[in-house]
Amino acid sequence: MGTVELDLTADVMTLCAQLVDIPSVSRDEQRIADAVEAALTPLPHLDVARLGNTVVARTGLGRGERVVIAGHLDTVPLHDNLPSRSDGTNLHGLGACDMKGGDAVILRLAATVPEPVRDVTYVLYEGEEIESEFNGLGHLASDQPDLLQADFAILMEPSDGVVEAGCQGTMRVEVTTYGERAHSARAWKGVNAIHRAAPVLDRLTAYEPRMPVIDGLTYHEGLNAVAISGGVAGNVLPDLCTVSVNHRFAPDRSEAEAEAFLRSFFDGYDVQVTDSAPGALPGLDRPAAKEFVEAVGGVANPKFGWTDVARFSALGVPAVNFGPGDPMLAHKQEEFVPLEQVRHCERVLARWLGAPG
Amino acid sequence: MGTVELDLTADVMTLCAQLVDIPSVSRDEQRIADAVEAALTPLPHLDVARLGNTVVARTGLGRGERVVIAGHLDTVPLHDNLPSRSDGTNLHGLGACDMKGGDAVILRLAATVPEPVRDVTYVLYEGEEIESEFNGLGHLASDQPDLLQADFAILMEPSDGVVEAGCQGTMRVEVTTYGERAHSARAWKGVNAIHRAAPVLDRLTAYEPRMPVIDGLTYHEGLNAVAISGGVAGNVLPDLCTVSVNHRFAPDRSEAEAEAFLRSFFDGYDVQVTDSAPGALPGLDRPAAKEFVEAVGGVANPKFGWTDVARFSALGVPAVNFGPGDPMLAHKQEEFVPLEQVRHCERVLARWLGAPG
Repeated sequence: MGTVELDLTADVMTLCAQLVDIPSVSRDEQRIADAVEAALTPLPHLDVARLGNTVVARTGLGRGERVVIAGHLDTVPLHDNLPSRSDGTNLHGLGACDMKGGDAVILRLAATVPEPVRDVTYVLYEGEEIESEFNGLGHLASDQPDLLQADFAILMEPSDGVVEAGCQGTMRVEVTTYGERAHSARAWKGVNAIHRAAPVLDRLTAYEPRMPVIDGLTYHEGLNAVAISGGVAGNVLPDLCTVSVNHRFAPDRSEAEAEAFLRSFFDGYDVQVTDSAPGALPGLDRPAAKEFVEAVGGVANPKFGWTDVARFSALGVPAVNFGPGDPMLAHKQEEFVPLEQVRHCERVLARWLGAPG
Repeated sequence: MGTVELDLTADVMTLCAQLVDIPSVSRDEQRIADAVEAALTPLPHLDVARLGNTVVARTGLGRGERVVIAGHLDTVPLHDNLPSRSDGTNLHGLGACDMKGGDAVILRLAATVPEPVRDVTYVLYEGEEIESEFNGLGHLASDQPDLLQADFAILMEPSDGVVEAGCQGTMRVEVTTYGERAHSARAWKGVNAIHRAAPVLDRLTAYEPRMPVIDGLTYHEGLNAVAISGGVAGNVLPDLCTVSVNHRFAPDRSEAEAEAFLRSFFDGYDVQVTDSAPGALPGLDRPAAKEFVEAVGGVANPKFGWTDVARFSALGVPAVNFGPGDPMLAHKQEEFVPLEQVRHCERVLARWLGAPG
């Protein structure tokens, strides 16, 4: 299969539909990254670099300020929701909301604003929806951190077209129960590890989330089993059952504090941390953040989901989320993005970059 | 890899070790079946037939009575318990107890008793440890039922070298819970199917087994999760969780009654029957069963595990379990078979078949 041709001169929604129609479940982003690289490389005002399936395109105008505008190319798994479908108001389909609407805006800005008033680093990256070891922005941060240096960063994750500040941390743990194998016809000679997982699920069911207020924004924590597995054979009592749990924690807690909470919550069980990423405090007091918030209307909401805003925070770059699409729809089968929000984001950002119009 | 050579002139325990050292996890029995077929085919007093990885060897002496002596060749999955190891008293290793000790006795009888006083049909078959659709005895019963016609059948499943009568039925069901996918950062927008499985595991934990007395034998029922699965991605609330449950029921209940019990036990949940096999009443009042029990010492115990005794019952052939090995050790990592029991079973059966000595 050859490289798909993206038309950056087309309307932003046409472009968005083209992006949705290139399936790009995490770990399968080569085709979409090839298409993005092929579309950006001919543009004379951009320097294009590639690392894995992550594409970076930069202006080099010597402006006094540089901003990053970034979006991930991957999606969660297919769920009978491709190809894309437009009803005239919304574009439906896997990744429409999270976050090919934002990606379309990024590609349009890259193509149509050749002389921005701020130098811009556009980043379209792989591996955001899975374990952080696969994250393309993380690979850039460790292998080529100079490509991410900037005064301010905008992540175009879905935020209903308003600024979302900060983000919650995320931690995954495996809670394992142990038993002793035996033939299921003589169960009294063994111990069933799956039955022993009952109290683990009971605790999860009884969990009450913390909802702290930070910089005037109310966060909302979460604790969920995202996978469970156990079983040896159809007539054997299993000696092992593993519950994978994802904890989302407000940015007033460090990763160490989140881990301590989980170890206490699952007291008595074997708990292994498998994946972790810190939150980011809203940071709305920093000048670059303040200025952008004012430019797009002055309103900021808390960000519940973990986003790579936290990676920029760790590099000392103030960052916010701002993109089209309802974040509540991300990862849902029926996700869609409203055409009007995509166009709004394109207009606001083009204006902020000094485009005529 | 060529066919392994089995030495049917060797001591029964040497032969047993040779059988254990041919791995034969269910669905991977070709190598052991090839070895068995190659060892039996040269014997002039036997007619050998093969169906899949099931080998049938028959005498044709025109005796007034025909008996089946049968054993399965497959084992449960490996669990760091190969190769075999003898400590001088017991042979240890995967399948030693369930049931290569019995298989070794069968092969020795086939080779060393060329003129039994009863015609004998020896059956060594595949696919006993998994779903009944794979059962080699089941395939014989449906495709070549004449090969199983007999006045009496002995299944050499481990029974500590005493007769075990009847067997419990087995039924597998999948209990499924449903939810609604959502991003785990905004869990309040979805429903977690794994959390919804908590009450299913709670009910299993609280289960109290029935222990009915039939023909003077006390049975012992069981209800166990044998597998659990659920999960979409590390940051998605799963919309599906499936608990596979194995119910062992005493032979005073039919399959329909067992299913009704399970549907009532898991009331409120989606229950699908995936696999089922009826029990067999002890039937110790039938003449052929009575005669064999007397020949081997007059004692009979109840059989807890489901065995293919039930298949013979369904064909109208009285059948019992009688084999070396502690049934409590079947499917356990540390399973072993006592040398003395294997030799005892060989002696008793050879005598019953009229061998000199």
